[in-house]
Amino acid sequence: MSACIFCKIIKGEIPCFKLFETEKTLAFLDINPLSRGHALVIPKFHGEKLLDIPDEHLTDILPIVKKLAKAVGTDNYNILQNNGRLAHQEVDHVHFHMIPKPNQAEGLGVGWPQQKTDMDQLKALFEDLKSRI
Amino acid sequence: MSACIFCKIIKGEIPCFKLFETEKTLAFLDINPLSRGHALVIPKFHGEKLLDIPDEHLTDILPIVKKLAKAVGTDNYNILQNNGRLAHQEVDHVHFHMIPKPNQAEGLGVGWPQQKTDMDQLKALFEDLKSRI
Repeated sequence: MSACIFCKIIKGEIPCFKLFETEKTLAFLDINPLSRGHALVIPKFHGEKLLDIPDEHLTDILPIVKKLAKAVGTDNYNILQNNGRLAHQEVDHVHFHMIPKPNQAEGLGVGWPQQKTDMDQLKALFEDLKSRI
Repeated sequence: MSACIFCKIIKGEIPCFKLFETEKTLAFLDINPLSRGHALVIPKFHGEKLLDIPDEHLTDILPIVKKLAKAVGTDNYNILQNNGRLAHQEVDHVHFHMIPKPNQAEGLGVGWPQQKTDMDQLKALFEDLKSRI
């Protein structure tokens, strides 16, 4: 955690283009943007993945993401939060990307390898998950 | 709105594999999954894009997304919310995908066309955005 680059940004030890903050949350520009206006919203609570963040910090996030999308004034945009290397997470402190999608070339590339739906398998999964929620 | 497939699911006019719900939010399995456990979390409030959803509905979403990720028990996963056709939105009612990423082939494909950082442009954008937040 002491080596976490986002914790250092939160503490002010590393500068950022700070757009907004609350007691629990910080929003700033991504300095390696995929498109104009690409911004990050992070909980000030250090946690690697979504499961590590207390609910009272999570509730603060989306209204701020919305505020950024509104300020950028983009019609097309993706909200993305990656967990784990396989899922393209690069910094191990939860962060939500707000990525404008002005055209096909810029912004997030979305690959959608949809599976053939097997209703029996889906129903079995459903019963299993329901019992654990 | 009367033709919205997600509003029909909320009203119970179309069935779904309902995993969880609150007064404001519904969670169910995606029936065209990208991976095992791919689920959707939607506000019961009808709105096409993130900007259309009142904050008091947005605050409810992420703790439920977290609950699903925990139940599925996946280490790697993406949280994604698409706004607009260019950004891959297919149903015009805000929905958050929780997509497990068990391996390279399954789950969300992430394309990351990172731009060359122009610090002067970024600073100008920052000043512009700050004045509008």
